[in-house]
Amino acid sequence: MGNGFVLRVRIDVTCQLAVAVTAERMACRLCRHVSWRYDRVMNKEDQAKDKANIVWHEHTVSREVREQRQGHCGCVVWFTGLSGSGKSTVANLVDEQLFAAGIRSYVLDGDNVRHGLNAGPESLRERHSEFFAARFGLGFSPEEREENIRRVGSVAGLLAASGVITLTAFVSPYRRDRALARECVERGRPDDFVEVFVDAPLDVCETRDPKGLYKKARAGLIKDFTGIQAPYEPPSSPEIHLDATSAPDQLAEQVIHYLQRTDKIGPS
Amino acid sequence: MGNGFVLRVRIDVTCQLAVAVTAERMACRLCRHVSWRYDRVMNKEDQAKDKANIVWHEHTVSREVREQRQGHCGCVVWFTGLSGSGKSTVANLVDEQLFAAGIRSYVLDGDNVRHGLNAGPESLRERHSEFFAARFGLGFSPEEREENIRRVGSVAGLLAASGVITLTAFVSPYRRDRALARECVERGRPDDFVEVFVDAPLDVCETRDPKGLYKKARAGLIKDFTGIQAPYEPPSSPEIHLDATSAPDQLAEQVIHYLQRTDKIGPS
Repeated sequence: MGNGFVLRVRIDVTCQLAVAVTAERMACRLCRHVSWRYDRVMNKEDQAKDKANIVWHEHTVSREVREQRQGHCGCVVWFTGLSGSGKSTVANLVDEQLFAAGIRSYVLDGDNVRHGLNAGPESLRERHSEFFAARFGLGFSPEEREENIRRVGSVAGLLAASGVITLTAFVSPYRRDRALARECVERGRPDDFVEVFVDAPLDVCETRDPKGLYKKARAGLIKDFTGIQAPYEPPSSPEIHLDATSAPDQLAEQVIHYLQRTDKIGPS
Repeated sequence: MGNGFVLRVRIDVTCQLAVAVTAERMACRLCRHVSWRYDRVMNKEDQAKDKANIVWHEHTVSREVREQRQGHCGCVVWFTGLSGSGKSTVANLVDEQLFAAGIRSYVLDGDNVRHGLNAGPESLRERHSEFFAARFGLGFSPEEREENIRRVGSVAGLLAASGVITLTAFVSPYRRDRALARECVERGRPDDFVEVFVDAPLDVCETRDPKGLYKKARAGLIKDFTGIQAPYEPPSSPEIHLDATSAPDQLAEQVIHYLQRTDKIGPS
């Protein structure tokens, strides 16, 4: 390419798979070449004049192309409800059924974020400074709960953008936090956030008490436990409202049907 | 199931796909049944005595089963190097080649974490409180850079656990931060962290200056810019050392060959 050559690139990534990939590949090779040599091939006057004419296009595999290949969308299925309502159980059953159908999915819950991304101060203190642990470690203060859900929302959005049906299972008791998670995810693409209210009465959850947390909360060993000392704000218009006194298999089925009905996955 | 029935469940998830899924499904249905009715079918004395005998097993689709199905591993390929060394370019080329080979991969870089997971105080202030933004927003102080890389490491680990070859492209100038990211990822599984040193001399990067950042740093508009006012600590023993003055295509090829050689993906 000669000096001062100005390249204008616009690629319609909604075109067919093969065409899109080939076009992206070709254009990006040219683009990279131009960008890398930009300062060397143009003088400053030309640069100022022509900078607006060059549309830099990263040679990424677009989300649409990825989803077209795999045959289903990525999205976030956000389970919310009291501790013991069955969020994790239903999310894992949905995950299992999606896996069986060859669909890419993943469950985000306390188990895989508690010790990593959203680790508490105690855990961060070991590897980082005292100051670091106090600032970024997440406990149970109102702001820390808010940040906990904000980080989960962001990560769920990234996983969805990578093409995965991301099933999150967190109490997430506050409407505002869930609304912000929805906003974060849907900045990627509208309708990508499916809120699932796993609705079980407090006394049912407390009888189940699979982790013994209600017992501890009643004994005063856990403070601000949702449902006991802290409120749970039920969703006012969730995409899916599950009666969580039914069998988990039936609840999972309802979620799968919703995903089929809204064309996020194909029919079974 | 009669009252007081005690179930002992241990499942070997390393067994073959079909057997594993069926066994997990069967065992988990039983398990769920027992767990949910636990408090109701046993008296307190029995509970205390028998709690240790019941091995709760979540009916998750295990990572091994997921990887077996898709025919390749999830892992983290961590590109590190100066701004302008070509980290993003090479990571995206690798992503493109993996996609073409039917392999699940995803690029994490400033573009997709800067406005979400690792947003700055300015961006958080809009939707959260002033206090919240100041505490959790990430700027460029030493601790904030450390947290930036910690969060990326955690998310990369989650993506890898979901079966994705996760390509991260961040300057990540400090050895200690990269070592902690490695530790976080390899807590999931040893050898899952592939450090790629994208090695280009500062003057080459500064000549490329694709985002005009060196110019701004030299003009004093950006403080503590890596390579100008702040140090870059090169990896002492990276899994892959790329001479980033070569063509990006060749560099991507080297990364692909490494992934093949270490059986993270199959031969081409």
